[in-house]
Amino acid sequence: MPTQPVASRDPRLATAPLLAAARRERPAHTPVWFMRQAGRALPEYRKVREGISMLDSCRRPELVTEITLQPVRRYGVDAAIFYSDIVVPLKAAGVALEIRPGVGPVIEEPFRTKADLDRIPELEPEMIPDIAESVRLLTAELGATPLIGFAGAPFTLASYLVEGGPSRDLAKTKALMYSDPQLWKALLDRLAQISAAFLKVQVAAGASAVQLFDSWVGALPLADYRSFVQPASASVLKAVKELDPTVPRIHFGVQTGELLPAIGEAGADVVGVDFRVPLDVASARLGPDYAVQGNLDPALLFAPHELLGERVRKTLEAGRAAPGHIFNLGHGVMPDTDPDALRFVADTVHSWSPDA
Amino acid sequence: MPTQPVASRDPRLATAPLLAAARRERPAHTPVWFMRQAGRALPEYRKVREGISMLDSCRRPELVTEITLQPVRRYGVDAAIFYSDIVVPLKAAGVALEIRPGVGPVIEEPFRTKADLDRIPELEPEMIPDIAESVRLLTAELGATPLIGFAGAPFTLASYLVEGGPSRDLAKTKALMYSDPQLWKALLDRLAQISAAFLKVQVAAGASAVQLFDSWVGALPLADYRSFVQPASASVLKAVKELDPTVPRIHFGVQTGELLPAIGEAGADVVGVDFRVPLDVASARLGPDYAVQGNLDPALLFAPHELLGERVRKTLEAGRAAPGHIFNLGHGVMPDTDPDALRFVADTVHSWSPDA
Repeated sequence: MPTQPVASRDPRLATAPLLAAARRERPAHTPVWFMRQAGRALPEYRKVREGISMLDSCRRPELVTEITLQPVRRYGVDAAIFYSDIVVPLKAAGVALEIRPGVGPVIEEPFRTKADLDRIPELEPEMIPDIAESVRLLTAELGATPLIGFAGAPFTLASYLVEGGPSRDLAKTKALMYSDPQLWKALLDRLAQISAAFLKVQVAAGASAVQLFDSWVGALPLADYRSFVQPASASVLKAVKELDPTVPRIHFGVQTGELLPAIGEAGADVVGVDFRVPLDVASARLGPDYAVQGNLDPALLFAPHELLGERVRKTLEAGRAAPGHIFNLGHGVMPDTDPDALRFVADTVHSWSPDA
Repeated sequence: MPTQPVASRDPRLATAPLLAAARRERPAHTPVWFMRQAGRALPEYRKVREGISMLDSCRRPELVTEITLQPVRRYGVDAAIFYSDIVVPLKAAGVALEIRPGVGPVIEEPFRTKADLDRIPELEPEMIPDIAESVRLLTAELGATPLIGFAGAPFTLASYLVEGGPSRDLAKTKALMYSDPQLWKALLDRLAQISAAFLKVQVAAGASAVQLFDSWVGALPLADYRSFVQPASASVLKAVKELDPTVPRIHFGVQTGELLPAIGEAGADVVGVDFRVPLDVASARLGPDYAVQGNLDPALLFAPHELLGERVRKTLEAGRAAPGHIFNLGHGVMPDTDPDALRFVADTVHSWSPDA
């Protein structure tokens, strides 16, 4: 792949609270955004998606721009997250798959043997000019607000390929990992290339941070994470760093309480924390070299505002124990969430002062 | 409810390895059993279940006895676990529900309001004479092998009632808990009565240990577990203790790494540990007053025997850090598991010596 030139960025981004917190500084207010802030919870999203499939919607620059901007307008959050889906780069590389409404990603021929590697081509920037175009449109609109690039991590991509679709226990994925470690490594290396290429296109086009989502990696014990997953995730994060060392790398997975330090060591600047681990506990496990992101339980958005506000403030207080804190949920926004509750959370975070 | 007289037990049980480990002693070998050891992974189970629904099968004493004994015969494990389902006591109390193959429990009218409490009657021993009969038949057959009584904990029962069926995020359950804490408490109190009654019938009929399964409680942060769940679980375990203080109480949930001490404090003698937390780490979090149970990743049963054996030995070594260790999986046996792999694990545990 040729070296990608990196787009120049809006100079006001230098002091953006999200990027400052990622650099382990203390911005004037704690920055906040929400995983899955774009999407099903918003009526304006449902409107623009009408009649357009999920995967199609991710490949139309005007639509990606509109959907990515919707939550920024509505909530006044401190970052946009690039609207996409974990399987978009797989599909773009040539893997036969679809997203079935109410089910999730379904792979036409699940990954089973070495021969299946041939059905997962490498991802080249030329295959996704629309992604670069979406990022360019977005950064022009966003100005001083950072755009966070989005990609799924190799393990989570592998889990969809091997299971053939969503799975509760990832039995087939783990069975492959344990029984054929060589094939597993080849698969993860291939997926690391795809994940890295997808992020690099976004960074080159102007994204000012990235988040690598390893949604399901919390299904692994620590020793297995280190042996079977961390090297591939590390190569993705390293590729981003080599392209532009000033772009902070956020790395997140659910149920990762025991994995936090190892997730940081994969090459993150900011470690996303699941709602199960209080941020002060998480930061103690991580040590002084990492900012944290999180971690309000998304179910609390269904609570009365009094309780919700109290929990937001508790999360902010716990976050002070870390050298940098980006407020977020401890998992994605749930579909039936009231957008007003998210607006209330963003406002509460912005008006909070540690000394009040 | 009248006081239940407790059946006399086989005197050889006094030295059973499972009960010794639960008392935090060091039996000659580490005892082993497997959560979901009875059931779908066994061809002899599928044969006797042919044409009989799950819920019916749990109410026929001869069949319950046969199914409970099958894994004891095949694997030579150190305990039988009473064959049942989490929703059996709800159905017995009068809640309209069914178990749909491939889906799980489905509640006819999900729990939503105070009026719905009337559709959850208390469970009286007279409603489940078959459960007592099954336990009597079983203990007569089992002799020196302990029978572990089985029940679902209030939170997990509530999650099925509120969601109406299995759910990935328990959004409705948490929404009710946060938005109407009084109704939530009334629901959990009612379910604690049902869970306790179900266990007490088993103990009175001769079960020599109990396990309270709070399968989904790991979906809660610690503070919420303590406020909204622990009191109800504690009342269940206390009821068992009051009936017979010599019967060890095992308490387990998945994804509970952050909750372990609180789960112990609910009144357990043995805390079941999810496969995500190494047993020595878990025991350090729990302190010296608790034995541990667990915690091989059930997905490892799909690994080659060399790796599987190595991981079994690692689990045994980590378990030595605890004052008592019952070997088990870190979650239930998966449906496609090869019974020979479970047999291999049981044999490896039994032949292991810490000094070898």
